[in-house]
Amino acid sequence: MTKPYVRLNKDDVAVLLVDHQTGLLSLVRDIDPDKFKNNVLAVADIAKYFKLPTILTTSFENGPNGPLVPELKEAFPDAPYIARPGQINAWDNEEFVKAVKATGKKQLLIAGVVTEVCVAFPALSAIEAGFDVFVVTDASGTFNEVTRHSAWDRMSAAGAQLMTWFGVACELHRDWRNDVEGLGTLFSNHIPDYRNLITSYNTVTSGK
Amino acid sequence: MTKPYVRLNKDDVAVLLVDHQTGLLSLVRDIDPDKFKNNVLAVADIAKYFKLPTILTTSFENGPNGPLVPELKEAFPDAPYIARPGQINAWDNEEFVKAVKATGKKQLLIAGVVTEVCVAFPALSAIEAGFDVFVVTDASGTFNEVTRHSAWDRMSAAGAQLMTWFGVACELHRDWRNDVEGLGTLFSNHIPDYRNLITSYNTVTSGK
Amino acid sequence: MTKPYVRLNKDDVAVLLVDHQTGLLSLVRDIDPDKFKNNVLAVADIAKYFKLPTILTTSFENGPNGPLVPELKEAFPDAPYIARPGQINAWDNEEFVKAVKATGKKQLLIAGVVTEVCVAFPALSAIEAGFDVFVVTDASGTFNEVTRHSAWDRMSAAGAQLMTWFGVACELHRDWRNDVEGLGTLFSNHIPDYRNLITSYNTVTSGK
Amino acid sequence: MTKPYVRLNKDDVAVLLVDHQTGLLSLVRDIDPDKFKNNVLAVADIAKYFKLPTILTTSFENGPNGPLVPELKEAFPDAPYIARPGQINAWDNEEFVKAVKATGKKQLLIAGVVTEVCVAFPALSAIEAGFDVFVVTDASGTFNEVTRHSAWDRMSAAGAQLMTWFGVACELHRDWRNDVEGLGTLFSNHIPDYRNLITSYNTVTSGK
Amino acid sequence: MTKPYVRLNKDDVAVLLVDHQTGLLSLVRDIDPDKFKNNVLAVADIAKYFKLPTILTTSFENGPNGPLVPELKEAFPDAPYIARPGQINAWDNEEFVKAVKATGKKQLLIAGVVTEVCVAFPALSAIEAGFDVFVVTDASGTFNEVTRHSAWDRMSAAGAQLMTWFGVACELHRDWRNDVEGLGTLFSNHIPDYRNLITSYNTVTSGK
Amino acid sequence: MTKPYVRLNKDDVAVLLVDHQTGLLSLVRDIDPDKFKNNVLAVADIAKYFKLPTILTTSFENGPNGPLVPELKEAFPDAPYIARPGQINAWDNEEFVKAVKATGKKQLLIAGVVTEVCVAFPALSAIEAGFDVFVVTDASGTFNEVTRHSAWDRMSAAGAQLMTWFGVACELHRDWRNDVEGLGTLFSNHIPDYRNLITSYNTVTSGK
Amino acid sequence: MTKPYVRLNKDDVAVLLVDHQTGLLSLVRDIDPDKFKNNVLAVADIAKYFKLPTILTTSFENGPNGPLVPELKEAFPDAPYIARPGQINAWDNEEFVKAVKATGKKQLLIAGVVTEVCVAFPALSAIEAGFDVFVVTDASGTFNEVTRHSAWDRMSAAGAQLMTWFGVACELHRDWRNDVEGLGTLFSNHIPDYRNLITSYNTVTSGK
Amino acid sequence: MTKPYVRLNKDDVAVLLVDHQTGLLSLVRDIDPDKFKNNVLAVADIAKYFKLPTILTTSFENGPNGPLVPELKEAFPDAPYIARPGQINAWDNEEFVKAVKATGKKQLLIAGVVTEVCVAFPALSAIEAGFDVFVVTDASGTFNEVTRHSAWDRMSAAGAQLMTWFGVACELHRDWRNDVEGLGTLFSNHIPDYRNLITSYNTVTSGK
Repeated sequence: MTKPYVRLNKDDVAVLLVDHQTGLLSLVRDIDPDKFKNNVLAVADIAKYFKLPTILTTSFENGPNGPLVPELKEAFPDAPYIARPGQINAWDNEEFVKAVKATGKKQLLIAGVVTEVCVAFPALSAIEAGFDVFVVTDASGTFNEVTRHSAWDRMSAAGAQLMTWFGVACELHRDWRNDVEGLGTLFSNHIPDYRNLITSYNTVTSGK
Repeated sequence: MTKPYVRLNKDDVAVLLVDHQTGLLSLVRDIDPDKFKNNVLAVADIAKYFKLPTILTTSFENGPNGPLVPELKEAFPDAPYIARPGQINAWDNEEFVKAVKATGKKQLLIAGVVTEVCVAFPALSAIEAGFDVFVVTDASGTFNEVTRHSAWDRMSAAGAQLMTWFGVACELHRDWRNDVEGLGTLFSNHIPDYRNLITSYNTVTSGK
Repeated sequence: MTKPYVRLNKDDVAVLLVDHQTGLLSLVRDIDPDKFKNNVLAVADIAKYFKLPTILTTSFENGPNGPLVPELKEAFPDAPYIARPGQINAWDNEEFVKAVKATGKKQLLIAGVVTEVCVAFPALSAIEAGFDVFVVTDASGTFNEVTRHSAWDRMSAAGAQLMTWFGVACELHRDWRNDVEGLGTLFSNHIPDYRNLITSYNTVTSGK
Repeated sequence: MTKPYVRLNKDDVAVLLVDHQTGLLSLVRDIDPDKFKNNVLAVADIAKYFKLPTILTTSFENGPNGPLVPELKEAFPDAPYIARPGQINAWDNEEFVKAVKATGKKQLLIAGVVTEVCVAFPALSAIEAGFDVFVVTDASGTFNEVTRHSAWDRMSAAGAQLMTWFGVACELHRDWRNDVEGLGTLFSNHIPDYRNLITSYNTVTSGK
Repeated sequence: MTKPYVRLNKDDVAVLLVDHQTGLLSLVRDIDPDKFKNNVLAVADIAKYFKLPTILTTSFENGPNGPLVPELKEAFPDAPYIARPGQINAWDNEEFVKAVKATGKKQLLIAGVVTEVCVAFPALSAIEAGFDVFVVTDASGTFNEVTRHSAWDRMSAAGAQLMTWFGVACELHRDWRNDVEGLGTLFSNHIPDYRNLITSYNTVTSGK
Repeated sequence: MTKPYVRLNKDDVAVLLVDHQTGLLSLVRDIDPDKFKNNVLAVADIAKYFKLPTILTTSFENGPNGPLVPELKEAFPDAPYIARPGQINAWDNEEFVKAVKATGKKQLLIAGVVTEVCVAFPALSAIEAGFDVFVVTDASGTFNEVTRHSAWDRMSAAGAQLMTWFGVACELHRDWRNDVEGLGTLFSNHIPDYRNLITSYNTVTSGK
Repeated sequence: MTKPYVRLNKDDVAVLLVDHQTGLLSLVRDIDPDKFKNNVLAVADIAKYFKLPTILTTSFENGPNGPLVPELKEAFPDAPYIARPGQINAWDNEEFVKAVKATGKKQLLIAGVVTEVCVAFPALSAIEAGFDVFVVTDASGTFNEVTRHSAWDRMSAAGAQLMTWFGVACELHRDWRNDVEGLGTLFSNHIPDYRNLITSYNTVTSGK
Repeated sequence: MTKPYVRLNKDDVAVLLVDHQTGLLSLVRDIDPDKFKNNVLAVADIAKYFKLPTILTTSFENGPNGPLVPELKEAFPDAPYIARPGQINAWDNEEFVKAVKATGKKQLLIAGVVTEVCVAFPALSAIEAGFDVFVVTDASGTFNEVTRHSAWDRMSAAGAQLMTWFGVACELHRDWRNDVEGLGTLFSNHIPDYRNLITSYNTVTSGK
């Protein structure tokens, strides 16, 4: 009667980054811009660190929506990049779906702008298509809390799991012993409090 | 075990605008008046743009509740207009239900004032009657966040999908190529940030 | 798969007011005291207006928890009044359950202090016992938003319907024509904005 | 179709306190530190008061995450204490699961830092393993409200019951007559408003 | 270099209630309606309790602004009542200024709707005319916090003292021994927490 | 020792609108976009209604900052328009100061984006130059509340008066009898609550 | 033209704790109870640590206001304790003023409940009497933010310096070398984050 | 009677960065960590860009307070660095004051952790010593809004000017033509919205 625990498995995950474009980002007002930028780049770092196949897509990038933020382009120079000619729901774009299926993964991590459209539409379609969908809520932005919580409710009711980037990283990593240095660096780069803990600790232990 | 993805289909949608009356609007305090007015008029523009059959109804309009806001009357001069003589749940009014059924549509978009009554009651009744119900949460207002979230919980648990006007417009439009100009104008008229993006873009590309 | 629309029916409703005691009320910090007092008295007025059988109960009233607020005692001089000798969950008190069953009603409206205990425990027990439970969320108070939302989640997941007093009054009344004066007075006494609408309207129409 | 009322039973409860470490606590920003400290110590007092078997665990305590807060160590000198060598999900640590099973209890109360990882992961695993899971939301902390509500949604959807420490104490105690003094002291030590009620009451009744 | 302590003296105070009209009140959104109504009526009770000369005034009451709230009319049946024919700043109305001067008082307590206009304008004019001005900030309402704090800054910089009704009552009363019963009743009627303290206390001491 | 009451006098006021440009507006996050747009246009309507000389200026409009919002250009086709070639403080631009002085007005109403720069700098300079400065705080936007309140403190300490557009309109108009229709229309166009009051009133009095 | 820097000097400071009574504390709603209790006890610890003469006073403690919180009584067994028979402004009580003057100190640290009355009145009176007044804002509580900020404005305008307990401790201590252990313990006992820093540090350096 | 406009002049400014240490930063809870880190680094970039003499100082860095954040050390390798042996007010350290005076600058920009101590104390001392003090409020952090606003009030009343980093950069730069590229880069690196504007603009104009 309840959702089973579908656990992220790094061997079975693909990442879909949808419409993080310089124009559209000005619409995001439910998360502070400094924090939101950090969250999105953290997801990118996760994808790279765990070598997760990643797919980039944009909506109408040659107009007011603006180009994909350059940091994402640079992070995934070889990723499938689908500049959608018009489809609002990325899942309505055949090339996009083909790219997703080509990864051979069953678990999809989705983040994008704006949450109730660019994230929710492909999330709902992917669930319908049999995928396990994990929404990275803090790397997905929208106009305000009413739009956010409406979108969350719709996606959760349909079976999507709501996660945030830190939880995603931890669930993928499973065990610190797999690579302390790597995960620690990722956290240090995206969580100032964690970076401070590490600096304090290293300073004391190194006798500096 | 989860709700299926019932997707808005512009050929199968009717819009129900319930009790957006000048007196009742003074009760709405969970959304700022400037924003709320904008959201309601955005829904009206969506209904007109997509030529969705629209039904207007009011409760006791010849008393303190006040008349329907004039902008809605003017937007839908030919729409069925049911001034309910007393029924609080619009669905208890036969004429209203008849008007809904006369549209022949299965998907109902509902917005109104106040959320937990004028929206929730017909939403719950319509679900019971077999319709697919989509609540436009940001064009529905109420007293405060406690009343809002209680109403959302009750409607969501009963199977209503919670959406906001921007998501509704996008899900109905499906593809920008169906009409870039039209959807862009709608967004420009109701999202200042989007209007600014368009102005900036046009200014640069027109060489002005 | 979703909860059916169980609609409040004034012939089938009993009201349970649990532990609105002068000491315990100092624990309520998720709703402002002026508003909370108003909400609780509104529920009392609803119970009296619709002649709903009402049951009062208190926990340890001869100690720091303090007596029931006098307004409630006065409102229901003949109601069953169960001063529980120790049971925290009112439903664990046989006299209380007997009183509930003696009403012969199947729908229970519950409000109390604090939400996650005095409301949630009997609500969950009553659902288990086969009743339809409606929680009046804005006449139920608790320590903060974390305790409130945790309690709401637990009760909603178990099948309780979350409502607020205004929605309750409207769903019970069904049709303004049943008594315009009565319901209008109730709203006027508990919603300053509504009172103002009525005063403005009456002033103009009476030519004063 | 709804979750049944699984009621906490003090004879069938074990408490899992996960990663309340001095370093990790600096990450908690969704609850004020004064209140959070109080909530965690209240859970500890509950565990001791009701003599609930309690299990302590930490993640990487010899690094930046820091040691378990000393108050918890001192409160449970004889409790199983699993300093996990690397597993992020405590349930992935065999010793931890063995300790849980050794308690012979079916109901698990879980609190920890941070909510979406150290609480959610073992909560989801324990549900999968057939336990009844109760999350103590106000003794579990995380980065912000987005991470909190995403975690709550995921756990609730999987069947966890969201509770707070005050509700836990009340549901375990059942009846004040079991020990008025004991429960009163626990509340007095962790709820300033309650302490004030008791002081006022005692002052008047003692004629001081 | 700092403002001297001009202390309210009940023999030298007049109260000015400006534009608490049923229509204008719908503009007040910086204080919750339940609380705001309570605050305004508390000021009225203070004026009556301390027998302070009180002046009522309205702006355009025969139009959309609506009539003065009836409670104020009833509370001060014999007070000067100036229905201003058009002046927005009450101080621009000669009859109003004459009424103020006729009280012979030098200290003016001002409350009204909306703060930055109906309160600030006469406050600034009265200071200029040599009066000591005390603004009852919590019985004065306006659109939002930006308008409120701008108005406060302007009035404070000009020399107005910002007070709230509870402080006003206390500064006027000076000593509980002047009348315990009277002041206690006033507080009990307008502060639910205080009422509860009194009820708890009386219950215990009366042995009930 | 306190600021004197310098009252806006429509014959002695000039309006300075500084850098309301389509790009810079995306930086404004202390006021919701719907409301902010409304506030800025309200100031424009005030300037036109009271025939106040108005000066427009922009910073680097041929770059990312974007053009002035078209609504302002259209509202003031004949106003001095100073596209500053680089000066951040408009007062450092001689042409701008010359235009201000050419108005012959001593009272300056300033609004702009962002508050702590485009508003505060010319406000401080103008005070130094002997002008009476009134900041329209709700038509001036900035990054967040920290930047806003720091800017307000600096300007207020320097002698600027903080006002909002509604107060400005009222102080300029002085008396409704000067033109009920005109001011009412201005309010109706920019305050939904006021518009609703008027519609309700007109509906009743017209017998519709 | 600005206030000079009057710096706290531990040899010239007396502490006035006004009306922290168990009943009155239920009125405090602008600071969370856990935090407020902590702040008040921190001030008590400061007074004891720096051996500052401290004066306790209460208002009507044999009635609903309740007794002084026992922790304060126990902390200062030998302090002057003035149970005022009725004066609301403690400074109106001769015995209180005599006790203040008997300390021979010129700098007064004041904290109490509620801010706008029990703190503001004696603060304003003491300034008038020539004392340097420092308000400990976070150990002073009141109904809400409107009452708080009105009280702060009135006191600041009159020349009071607004401080919080941490700043007070630091300004009194001047130099960590005066006693690292002592001040560190005080902070550790009242700032969970600081306690965690110390525990982390000690753990690492002690090689545990 | 009001503060004169003391304008930042890049030839007369020194920057004081006080106690941005890895341990102390965990105390900062009035600004989100992502944003706060960004603000502090922005001030560092400003100091470097405008070649402002900068002084670093720490409190007890070999203990729980932790070392200066490495980014600041690296940014100013040749700056005076005063590791204070115990003085809480940096101005009490002779070496620090000597370093300040050695810069020969009269305008001091101060930022630090925590605001009411590490910023306010030296700010007040520096004003007393005849410097013009500008506090960078958004690069100064503290426990909560009560401590922040108390500190702001004390500093502002003493004559400090409250600014934020963006305003500081703009007031120092005066004119974009001095270096468009440089200032643009600084903004692009610290304001995601600005970076997006630039990227959008460059993309369109470069024809990409």
